[in-house]
Amino acid sequence: MRETVMAGVGMHPFGRFEGKPYTQMALEAVLMALKDANVPWKDVQAAYCSSVFCPATSGLKILTPLGLTGIPITNVEAACASGGSSIMIAQQAIATGLYDVVLALGVDKMPRGFISPEALGEKWQVLAGMVSGPMNFALNARRHMYEYGTTVEQMAKVSVKAHKNGVFNPYAMYRKELSFEEIMNSQVVADPIRRLMFCAPNEGAAAAVLCSRDVAKKYTDVRRCPEVASAVVKTAAYPGFPVMPYYSFSTRKKLVSPVKLAAREAYEKAGIGPKDLDVVELQDTDAASEINLYEQLDLCNEGEGGRLVDEGATEISGSIPVNPSGGLLCKGEPVGASGLGQVAEIVWQLRGEAGKRQVAKPKVGMSQVVGNGGICAVVILKN
Amino acid sequence: MRETVMAGVGMHPFGRFEGKPYTQMALEAVLMALKDANVPWKDVQAAYCSSVFCPATSGLKILTPLGLTGIPITNVEAACASGGSSIMIAQQAIATGLYDVVLALGVDKMPRGFISPEALGEKWQVLAGMVSGPMNFALNARRHMYEYGTTVEQMAKVSVKAHKNGVFNPYAMYRKELSFEEIMNSQVVADPIRRLMFCAPNEGAAAAVLCSRDVAKKYTDVRRCPEVASAVVKTAAYPGFPVMPYYSFSTRKKLVSPVKLAAREAYEKAGIGPKDLDVVELQDTDAASEINLYEQLDLCNEGEGGRLVDEGATEISGSIPVNPSGGLLCKGEPVGASGLGQVAEIVWQLRGEAGKRQVAKPKVGMSQVVGNGGICAVVILKN
Repeated sequence: MRETVMAGVGMHPFGRFEGKPYTQMALEAVLMALKDANVPWKDVQAAYCSSVFCPATSGLKILTPLGLTGIPITNVEAACASGGSSIMIAQQAIATGLYDVVLALGVDKMPRGFISPEALGEKWQVLAGMVSGPMNFALNARRHMYEYGTTVEQMAKVSVKAHKNGVFNPYAMYRKELSFEEIMNSQVVADPIRRLMFCAPNEGAAAAVLCSRDVAKKYTDVRRCPEVASAVVKTAAYPGFPVMPYYSFSTRKKLVSPVKLAAREAYEKAGIGPKDLDVVELQDTDAASEINLYEQLDLCNEGEGGRLVDEGATEISGSIPVNPSGGLLCKGEPVGASGLGQVAEIVWQLRGEAGKRQVAKPKVGMSQVVGNGGICAVVILKN
Repeated sequence: MRETVMAGVGMHPFGRFEGKPYTQMALEAVLMALKDANVPWKDVQAAYCSSVFCPATSGLKILTPLGLTGIPITNVEAACASGGSSIMIAQQAIATGLYDVVLALGVDKMPRGFISPEALGEKWQVLAGMVSGPMNFALNARRHMYEYGTTVEQMAKVSVKAHKNGVFNPYAMYRKELSFEEIMNSQVVADPIRRLMFCAPNEGAAAAVLCSRDVAKKYTDVRRCPEVASAVVKTAAYPGFPVMPYYSFSTRKKLVSPVKLAAREAYEKAGIGPKDLDVVELQDTDAASEINLYEQLDLCNEGEGGRLVDEGATEISGSIPVNPSGGLLCKGEPVGASGLGQVAEIVWQLRGEAGKRQVAKPKVGMSQVVGNGGICAVVILKN
């Protein structure tokens, strides 16, 4: 297997952009990534485009104005894990020697409001009374409280941290600090989760140019190109239907969460452990999920996620900074783009280009996204 | 690169199945393919699912009832070329040694009626008066008539041939011979194309198990597993926006059609030429497209497609049988599944299992699909 590097990344801000087509947002992210890598479009040998809400062959439509060069352009989708899945396939293509230079991009322009499980094809959830995504998240949060004594206050602190970081991220939708009280007193959407503990579905795009290390040298200074140490996608392991799948509570011992599986395989492939991570971008669709994901990613033991928050360990200045970008709580989540947006942030962090949200001299970073609770993508980048 | 074989294929009939969920149709095709390959589900190491109209993470939803085993499940989309794109990525994964056993599946459950360009995100086409797919096809057909003297009668003969073959295909939606007069006298949908010269968007599923040849031996008799000699996806090559892209008329010399690019690369990779083909399944969304595709695939020179029809060369008994399955004109086109359905037909033909629609002792077969006119997938299978 050849070494794969992130030669360049680009991002269109996440937010709401009325009247701006998804093709234009994505093209801006692509042009930024190509420029960052110093790779001309004509040298790109394959492209993988992630989107959930954009129309068929969106990758082709986005890239057509650059002049079509005959390369394969494939859309890759795994709900919220779409971007990470594109990166996995792109990395496999470079590592195995199929191509030397590939493009992964992600974009979405989502309808306003919470996503109904029905929109994702889960009619049974709606029949069971779970009429929106937040109800799922709330049940997960309640269960975590019941099992481990996690508190609503700890969830609020996650959101405080996110908004403190997001102020310094020009690509984030919400760039305003929020106080603990504001968050606690915001509307309860689905108990225990308040409005200001949720991320917003929105619009945006991100892109990355992946190369073999040897070929990257032709274009750019490879010292600013982190290695893709691993890019892993896993589904859950469970002999049956995984309701609320990414938990693995004592009552559901049979389920192995896709997050755990992906993280552990990614650590193994990268030859590192969770203690070696210097910075993490994870899928904080809501503040309680972030706490749970600390545990799923082995940043701490099961049940200790709340304690990690209390200790400030995941602050930018903490022992394992999580979501220095402000996370999805500040950026919002255009599902096709979020994984690639995380990877752009990790690249900037590893290069020391993250400005006032910069983590101190990180060497190893991780991105994690999970789609429909059942498919997780983890990418580990190393300087 | 390792040799990849089609270890097994499966198909759910294409048609209309009110009340039957897409997950069930797809699962039936998957179980048939696994049984055909004699591969247990637990041995599958990755899955690629193609769909355009099914919800996000449809692959995960389809495969969950088999018991989740943790493998990566990725949705792959390229409009009508989705199935061929899944096969390309699956074949690359086997050939490069990433995996030994993978599953490619395709499924769709499409709304009734013609597809509007707007549904595919092409608002500019609607503004230009092209309110449905058939208008695109009709303009292409008219241009072919103008350039090469192709006749409506030749188009009708393509449909006669398709329906003669489709009678013998248990997976086809329309299984009734149609006379030349019936076709010519059917309603003109978009001049020159009549209703009985169009394929129907519909529902269905198909699946294939791909293995390295060495690993396939563990499961099955490899003599019944055709080699995947090439699996290629190409976009058009054109320095600008490709209107009606898969034509390359004299007036638009700058455009190189994705079909030509894909076919030529597929021939080269397989080490064969068009004369070596014994059977072809191509994307006859309408009868005129079939004539044009003969030329794009180099089955004849440009402008000679109509003559090929008159000579009966593409009949089952002809020199180069095309669409012995009855093609999309008889099967209908569930877009995510159609490429995999073609590959299933080619496998059955190469094994001599195609019953009354069997081509005489074929050794080499081709499948071809094209998505949104701009992305073409070609798969060549060899005994």
